[in-house]
Amino acid sequence: MTGVEPARRSLALPGPFRLKGGGRLPAVTLAYEAWGSPAAGSRPVLVLCTGLSPSAHAASSAADPSPGWWEPLIGTGRALDTDRFRIFCFNPLGGCFGSTGPSSIDPLTGERYGARFPEIAIEDIAAAIHRALGALGIGRVDAVVGPSMGGLVALALALHEPRAVRRLAVISAAAAAEPFAVAIRSLQREILSAHLGQEADRVRRGMRFARKLGLISYRSPVEWRTRFGRRRETDPAARTGRPAGSAPPFAVEWYLETRARDFAERFDPESYLRLSRAMDEFDAADPGGGDLERALAGAGLEAVLVAGVTTDLLYPSHQLESLARGFRGSGTPVELRIIDSPTGHDAFLADWVRFEEPLRKFLEF
Amino acid sequence: MTGVEPARRSLALPGPFRLKGGGRLPAVTLAYEAWGSPAAGSRPVLVLCTGLSPSAHAASSAADPSPGWWEPLIGTGRALDTDRFRIFCFNPLGGCFGSTGPSSIDPLTGERYGARFPEIAIEDIAAAIHRALGALGIGRVDAVVGPSMGGLVALALALHEPRAVRRLAVISAAAAAEPFAVAIRSLQREILSAHLGQEADRVRRGMRFARKLGLISYRSPVEWRTRFGRRRETDPAARTGRPAGSAPPFAVEWYLETRARDFAERFDPESYLRLSRAMDEFDAADPGGGDLERALAGAGLEAVLVAGVTTDLLYPSHQLESLARGFRGSGTPVELRIIDSPTGHDAFLADWVRFEEPLRKFLEF
Repeated sequence: MTGVEPARRSLALPGPFRLKGGGRLPAVTLAYEAWGSPAAGSRPVLVLCTGLSPSAHAASSAADPSPGWWEPLIGTGRALDTDRFRIFCFNPLGGCFGSTGPSSIDPLTGERYGARFPEIAIEDIAAAIHRALGALGIGRVDAVVGPSMGGLVALALALHEPRAVRRLAVISAAAAAEPFAVAIRSLQREILSAHLGQEADRVRRGMRFARKLGLISYRSPVEWRTRFGRRRETDPAARTGRPAGSAPPFAVEWYLETRARDFAERFDPESYLRLSRAMDEFDAADPGGGDLERALAGAGLEAVLVAGVTTDLLYPSHQLESLARGFRGSGTPVELRIIDSPTGHDAFLADWVRFEEPLRKFLEF
Repeated sequence: MTGVEPARRSLALPGPFRLKGGGRLPAVTLAYEAWGSPAAGSRPVLVLCTGLSPSAHAASSAADPSPGWWEPLIGTGRALDTDRFRIFCFNPLGGCFGSTGPSSIDPLTGERYGARFPEIAIEDIAAAIHRALGALGIGRVDAVVGPSMGGLVALALALHEPRAVRRLAVISAAAAAEPFAVAIRSLQREILSAHLGQEADRVRRGMRFARKLGLISYRSPVEWRTRFGRRRETDPAARTGRPAGSAPPFAVEWYLETRARDFAERFDPESYLRLSRAMDEFDAADPGGGDLERALAGAGLEAVLVAGVTTDLLYPSHQLESLARGFRGSGTPVELRIIDSPTGHDAFLADWVRFEEPLRKFLEF
């Protein structure tokens, strides 16, 4: 599940690591990848925070030429220009692609943490990144970019580590989850939890169910109407498990099945539970005592980009507007870009081309 | 689960009853309720088709004064005026509130059908209603009104029983489900199916999961934002099952839990699977060989109302527009009403007041 990619580096942070929820970890390792010459000490530093699902492999490199999850936006001459920036992407604390998480070995017992792994908060993920940057000798980050959960982590990094960040880009994320997003993630966790502690096949089934519900919330009715319509799937494998004599599944059902199967093979269920819950609990207004403008003012940012799409079910455009308004009210220069795209929350991946110009412009400083 | 309400009547239809999917039922009983004097033979007849979840108890009566699921719209002087119409509401074939369904006794074995109950189609539900009307001596129906699944049944009744219906009101429904609605219902069925054949507690848990996902699709992010925000639930019972030391659940999570628990107690899982699948498979264009206008023209309707709301996730407004366009193209007079309401698909229940005027006007003939 956590086969080490050749480009992945590891950073051991001195412990213990105290968590917002009261737990503590005796030791923390963060996995990361880096692009742009690390020797070029004078170059500006860009930190990329990942969504819930991907690893730190955001882009290819000489050490690992396989395409990363934001490949088209990272590289020479691209929006996140590796000729201009030193770019770092960290796998989050609590994740399962190399950073300390539930699938790591607890040094106190010599066994995997599993369900005993403590609850983590978005602020903990940000604090671990902040300490890792310190260990790398980076005092202040010139730009932080984060899509989806990464947008929350980027916000937390800016708000909770004063003057750690100069410029912040929040992509397809918002100050706090609304009840619709909470309901969807809460149900994912409840269904998954009901499958844990059983044989591996059942655990994977729970992961498939949770992921299918996730996929429903990551895309949009508009995209699926065009992409699938009422088309049926003709692959004979797609017939498995349907009542005898029934019609073949709709193409959308088979799409969910193949995507969810793949995810269930590669993601740790306990990581999923913790990162998902952290997203629901996060509220950017917390450091302002519930006052968002005050919280945002505390970050002392030079510039902010808030960008997302019209069809995002998890972080709808009025939430982007409200975050941008908060920054404006706090006296921070902010650019709001609500992009017309049919591909929903996942547009930053599925329709990345529409994020290219806003990111390029934001990073021209 | 199927305690008989005093106003409920039963109609045994002569068998066998052949089903669209190839199955057959040796005998079919339909449960229904009626309002307005049945003796007044010259009064126009209105048939109300239910959504997936409710019983035939759409309104109170002398025999059963408990409020029905569409109480505010049915009665003396109300939009569905019991002084003007004889009104009949049928529990669907395949349901679990008195009509033949999976929880009924199979006369051939003396045991409940359960999982052996055949697949049913929306057209089968409509055909059973058509035969029941014949048995009641009603040759032609003056108006059929159906919300949600009832809208599909109403469409099927009009399209598959030529000249059986004069006027048709399709509420919060459309010609066929789009992939987003199919994905949500398909996942509900898959999760529920994984819990069947186990102890009763686990089956109920599967029903709770399926229903929670249903509730997410029945309401809207807009409503929940205002109603719940990020409020926490303080009821101590709401703490059950959460990780020790974690924050209390969000109000939206507890709302889903209490609503889903209630549903799991009263609805039959095998009924749920069949009615849900029937909704996905239905396509009003079928009798036109895939040509919707031709199919709709075949119904020979005098007037049609298509009404729904702006925030419906299952049957979004462009689908209402498309159904209305189909009727217009088929030469049928049609009124399209896209109502501004925050309460999503369930608006016909939660925000019934906005449907009063369109229904009243439609029924003034």
